Amino acid sequence: MISHSAYTVEPWCLRETSLDLGVIAQSESLFALSNGHLGWRGNLDEGEPHGLPGSYLNGVYESHPLPYAEAGYGYPEAGQTVVNVTNGKVIRLLVDDQPFDVRYGRLVAHERVLDFRSGLLSRELQWISPGGKGIRVHSSRLVSLMQRSIAAISYYVEALDQTVRVVLQSELVANETLPPTSGGDPRESTALPTPLVSEEHTCGGTGASLLHRTGVSGLRLGAAMEHRIDAPPRTQVTSESMPDLGRVTITATLRPGQRLRVVKFVAHGWSAERSRPAVRDQVAAALAGATQSGWDELVAEQRTYLDDFWAGADVEIDGDPPVQQAVRFAMFHLLQAGARGEGRAIAAKGLTGPGYDGHAFWDTETFVLPVLTYTAPPAAADALRWRHSTLPAARERAIQLGLSGAVFPWRTIAGAECSGYWPAGAAAFHIGADIADAVVRYIDVTGDERFAREVGVELLADTARLWRSLGHYDPGGGFRIDGVTGPDEYSAVADNNVYTNLMAQHNLVSAADATTRDPAKAHALGIDAPEVQRWRDAAAAIVIPYDDALGVHAQNEGFTSHELWDFKETTDGQYPLLLHFPYFDLYRKQVVKQADLVLAMHLRGAAFTAEEKARNFAYYEALTVRDSSLSACTQAVLAAETGHLELAYDYLTEAALMDLDDLEHNTSDGLHIASLAGTWIALVDGLAGLRERNGGVAFCPQLPAGIARLSFTIRVQCKRLHVEITADSTQYRLHDGPSLSVLHNGRPITVTAAAAISAPNRQMSLSAAPTQPAGRAPRPHRCHR
Amino acid sequence: MISHSAYTVEPWCLRETSLDLGVIAQSESLFALSNGHLGWRGNLDEGEPHGLPGSYLNGVYESHPLPYAEAGYGYPEAGQTVVNVTNGKVIRLLVDDQPFDVRYGRLVAHERVLDFRSGLLSRELQWISPGGKGIRVHSSRLVSLMQRSIAAISYYVEALDQTVRVVLQSELVANETLPPTSGGDPRESTALPTPLVSEEHTCGGTGASLLHRTGVSGLRLGAAMEHRIDAPPRTQVTSESMPDLGRVTITATLRPGQRLRVVKFVAHGWSAERSRPAVRDQVAAALAGATQSGWDELVAEQRTYLDDFWAGADVEIDGDPPVQQAVRFAMFHLLQAGARGEGRAIAAKGLTGPGYDGHAFWDTETFVLPVLTYTAPPAAADALRWRHSTLPAARERAIQLGLSGAVFPWRTIAGAECSGYWPAGAAAFHIGADIADAVVRYIDVTGDERFAREVGVELLADTARLWRSLGHYDPGGGFRIDGVTGPDEYSAVADNNVYTNLMAQHNLVSAADATTRDPAKAHALGIDAPEVQRWRDAAAAIVIPYDDALGVHAQNEGFTSHELWDFKETTDGQYPLLLHFPYFDLYRKQVVKQADLVLAMHLRGAAFTAEEKARNFAYYEALTVRDSSLSACTQAVLAAETGHLELAYDYLTEAALMDLDDLEHNTSDGLHIASLAGTWIALVDGLAGLRERNGGVAFCPQLPAGIARLSFTIRVQCKRLHVEITADSTQYRLHDGPSLSVLHNGRPITVTAAAAISAPNRQMSLSAAPTQPAGRAPRPHRCHR
Repeated sequence: MISHSAYTVEPWCLRETSLDLGVIAQSESLFALSNGHLGWRGNLDEGEPHGLPGSYLNGVYESHPLPYAEAGYGYPEAGQTVVNVTNGKVIRLLVDDQPFDVRYGRLVAHERVLDFRSGLLSRELQWISPGGKGIRVHSSRLVSLMQRSIAAISYYVEALDQTVRVVLQSELVANETLPPTSGGDPRESTALPTPLVSEEHTCGGTGASLLHRTGVSGLRLGAAMEHRIDAPPRTQVTSESMPDLGRVTITATLRPGQRLRVVKFVAHGWSAERSRPAVRDQVAAALAGATQSGWDELVAEQRTYLDDFWAGADVEIDGDPPVQQAVRFAMFHLLQAGARGEGRAIAAKGLTGPGYDGHAFWDTETFVLPVLTYTAPPAAADALRWRHSTLPAARERAIQLGLSGAVFPWRTIAGAECSGYWPAGAAAFHIGADIADAVVRYIDVTGDERFAREVGVELLADTARLWRSLGHYDPGGGFRIDGVTGPDEYSAVADNNVYTNLMAQHNLVSAADATTRDPAKAHALGIDAPEVQRWRDAAAAIVIPYDDALGVHAQNEGFTSHELWDFKETTDGQYPLLLHFPYFDLYRKQVVKQADLVLAMHLRGAAFTAEEKARNFAYYEALTVRDSSLSACTQAVLAAETGHLELAYDYLTEAALMDLDDLEHNTSDGLHIASLAGTWIALVDGLAGLRERNGGVAFCPQLPAGIARLSFTIRVQCKRLHVEITADSTQYRLHDGPSLSVLHNGRPITVTAAAAISAPNRQMSLSAAPTQPAGRAPRPHRCHR
Repeated sequence: MISHSAYTVEPWCLRETSLDLGVIAQSESLFALSNGHLGWRGNLDEGEPHGLPGSYLNGVYESHPLPYAEAGYGYPEAGQTVVNVTNGKVIRLLVDDQPFDVRYGRLVAHERVLDFRSGLLSRELQWISPGGKGIRVHSSRLVSLMQRSIAAISYYVEALDQTVRVVLQSELVANETLPPTSGGDPRESTALPTPLVSEEHTCGGTGASLLHRTGVSGLRLGAAMEHRIDAPPRTQVTSESMPDLGRVTITATLRPGQRLRVVKFVAHGWSAERSRPAVRDQVAAALAGATQSGWDELVAEQRTYLDDFWAGADVEIDGDPPVQQAVRFAMFHLLQAGARGEGRAIAAKGLTGPGYDGHAFWDTETFVLPVLTYTAPPAAADALRWRHSTLPAARERAIQLGLSGAVFPWRTIAGAECSGYWPAGAAAFHIGADIADAVVRYIDVTGDERFAREVGVELLADTARLWRSLGHYDPGGGFRIDGVTGPDEYSAVADNNVYTNLMAQHNLVSAADATTRDPAKAHALGIDAPEVQRWRDAAAAIVIPYDDALGVHAQNEGFTSHELWDFKETTDGQYPLLLHFPYFDLYRKQVVKQADLVLAMHLRGAAFTAEEKARNFAYYEALTVRDSSLSACTQAVLAAETGHLELAYDYLTEAALMDLDDLEHNTSDGLHIASLAGTWIALVDGLAGLRERNGGVAFCPQLPAGIARLSFTIRVQCKRLHVEITADSTQYRLHDGPSLSVLHNGRPITVTAAAAISAPNRQMSLSAAPTQPAGRAPRPHRCHR
């Protein structure tokens, strides 16, 4: 766990006041910069020490064989792994004859600040070399949200009390040696040695460039750098290049108080199709644009972009500064993950690290896109357009599996299924319905009809076709979906998973509605009225297992007959269970990795009565161990809905601090983007009770005792809606557009830009809070203070 | 499919009258010689052409890593693969200046005969070299059943009508290059390049020897050869050795009609523990023993051994010569697989090929041992003593999986789990009950109390402990076993598989009975009365799913609610289904790879009423595709029991011709030993209705129209019981011992050695035969005539 003491609690930034090399990899993830296209981990400028060097271009991957001890039909033969691309961050420094390295000499002062409003990562330090020479270094870097191929660093070094000669080497480095992975944890990435093959390298003046391609996947990528140097007289500049190295060397002698300042502009580019000259030129052009802008303009643009974002996305919390900081940290990284993806996926770790091999999963649609839909809608649309672009592969996969429509991959970078364990991969068909759900939400909330026409209807129809072919009617007329895996990966290949069936039902109905609304599109897709009727019939007949004896829904058929997991005999060290018990044992017992039925109650709430929700929530609380980062936020939402506000607050806090406190112990290889989204979900869907109802939005606000005020802005139908919740009432105000109708505690109210409108919060009578498995209760939120 | 025309139908041998290189690998399997310790595939003496060269020592394997695209807790990390050991079969021949190779020149005559009574594989041929020189070659080989380390070849070459100089090279060859495997079929073996590391090689006089060890598993193995030469004057003999080659070269000039005769003695030995000199000497000593015996004595011993076997194991069938031949072929290979295993496993392919990596599975206990128990009881005991010797590994595996007692591996050579796909491996817990069932049958049929004391009780107790820890009580008091895989590998990880639960019940009760009978042993194993009571309670409460609406047992919970497989849309080329459809699809639909519930009705017949059997059999017949060789025989047994004698005959014929007709298309990499056992099971358990009842044997004989007489001998309580069934009645006679009580159609009768006793067969009224999936009915037995 990252000790909190290293970070100060501040509302608009993450500040590190000392450097702890024991958690350097985690801090590299927390301090990562990205624009959704290009990602730079928060490595130190000088390259070393590092936890994990990392620079990523969204969509750049290498293929590798997926091995099986026993092969099977339809198993994916090739995996895709995110590649650490050319590192443009490196600025090494020689101080007299000693390399600047914080592990040697004496680091007198150190501070790093990630500013959520400026989008800059700044670093300020003072260092005394082993030879006794003192320097001050200040660096500031950005990955541009406006110029998506560009990152830039403003770097200066100043001599303190003695004259020093400094040699500054600004580099592009390809095929960096990565630290070995343990191989025992399936969440880790696949290590590929030297994945990049050099195609070209050039240098000249104060710049250099490298062009490579990936060996197997055959993607071409280029990086180029240029510098603006502000230096004392007699400073010497040379440049050189090698296949895996571009270097500009600046040698200067600094008197006490004198500075060498360098602005480094780095451009990245890649293509699967374009020629060597084309990629080289595209990178050079991006670089020319950036140098023309200059550092100050890049900084100003960044601020403008972020100001606009925060104006429609900020969340304010009175009474809990750590959560206030955490939610802005989360929103900042969420924006970074999706802002400029433009036709590429939002991966589970964004572009902050190589965890999960850089793959995108269902969490994007189920956790990330709901938040982006309300706060950065174009980013949500982009991510769904990427899904749409992978339809050909998904249709091929369906054919391979003997199904209709589209089978989207459980994990992928470019669209091909990369899951090497089908019971928790191919069998998790719910991803199709999750995509459909994200499509429906996006269209309902934004009213983006062009998106619906170009992308939405087709995604809905192809996923509906899948469900119709996947399920079958039993003799009693029930529509069953057998042998699939729901969100809870501690059960697998089971019949009639409630979550899957309810989401499929929604998918089928939404597809029927959407194709009925757009008959021309339906016709173009070859969908006729009988097919639409078959979708509606299947949706109406879907089987939802219910255990009459217990009075709760069974997560899937037979689930409640299984043996209860022996939580009393399970020690703290045996979590996460998947690393200490065989799947065989997990699957056959009542133990839940992550919200599954509870997630169904969140996303398909109308399918349950309030009493069912309360009973189900209590039953599954006692079984849920949260071995996934995708659980606490959903539990927060249902805890709030069932009136357990203190418990909701605990889960909210856990979700909020997942990465800041490294609760899953793997923040080192990247942030949990979906869990970060969960912070917002726990606050907005949880405490404010936001749901989509009848094509509009509904609220049911309430606050736990510790939070005096929660206010936030969301974007609905191209208008900004501001919601401000206090203990007893909630105030709504519109920032743009004439008016918007919303539901407040089930009653419609009309919000206008003219004046705020207030309404009382509901007051729930409290029942006893449900209990969790021994040792698996969330840490009370008070402990985080 | 092997064209039958190459083999003549004869009662006591398999004769090949022409050489078809297109099926050479299959014929190598059919003509394989083995004694259960040492196996030689039926490769041509001259080594080439070959389908698959193969020499095996039972228990000699190499370890290799088992790779996983996604790792999981408890997955076996190392596999074991049978190793092709030093080849002692090779006798090459140079005829003048041209190598004898049937692919060149002209093969004028060719015949090979495997004689089931002599145990010899003989070959006779005439060949005209490309240079026009004619020779006749005769070779005869045996793998000794009396001297288990020894194989021998009597070889002569004769000049036909011209004088020829022949150079005969008799060899030991290690690390032969094996043909590549396709990699796509999970039933194939894992190819390991050059698995043997040379430790020593010697030669001298007319002999040579090679000593190697396996690289990773560290087993040491030796092979040595010696020759007796009968040659014209001026014949020259030299010997040489290299790390992977021992060679004795005999050069002679033969006038027309003149012969060079060589007897080659080959000794094999191996050890995991013994030193280099010890293994070298053990091989040399075995070789000395064999040369002292000489060829004629080896041949005579072999005949004596086999005469004794056949006197207690022969099966005679009047009216169906192909099945008559097939059942003796089967019994011969069954004996070969188990005769001298002595502390090692009987692998799925015996020692006839590398298929299934040389692993032993549950088929040994469930199919092979019942036959050996009645026909070669010491071989059955040996195989179970091997299981007992692996108890330490099985107990460790249980601990790793969080269970009690012993978890035997789904597939292994030396005792460690080698299954790389747990849903059809580790989850197939029924293997524990299968072993227990074989133990109970062996003890009941043989009365071998020493075996019970030394091996049996402990095996029963450790498997019973497993079941007690694997199952749990539901709130209604039922004892459930969830999340396991039964014999049908087209369903997996399901709740309350009827086969598994009924076999577990039998296991629990048998363990309780056995420990009650032997309190001293129970005490030594730490078993007290309350534990025994817990076994009995669990057995009494075991859950057996039944579908009231359909009036049949559900193979496992939920099975009968699943979608029916679309057999009409499945083409012939799509079988076996596992190579053309994902497991995901197979698991979630009603389609049965191999008898599962039907096998339960065979082995636990008393748990079903006659009506249930008839209904269940009809229901599962319509779902069973027989994509496993382990199905037809069981279907034959239940077809007979439910009165469908013609159908039983069809299945019996299919089981009998599985390898002779290469029905599974993989006889090339070894015979299906369990399926061969199925021939006997279909006849004796099927037509004769043999079952164990109350510690004795019971019959319910009946014959289909085409079979006029079926007679066979089995060994029961150290007595040979002869049973002769004709159309209307059955005659019993005892060969040894005073008397034996058996059940005939449920009535006890006493059989004595003094006189035969006859009883009428039951006459069943025929109902309509059940139907099979489209295209999956067995070929009518008449088509085989």
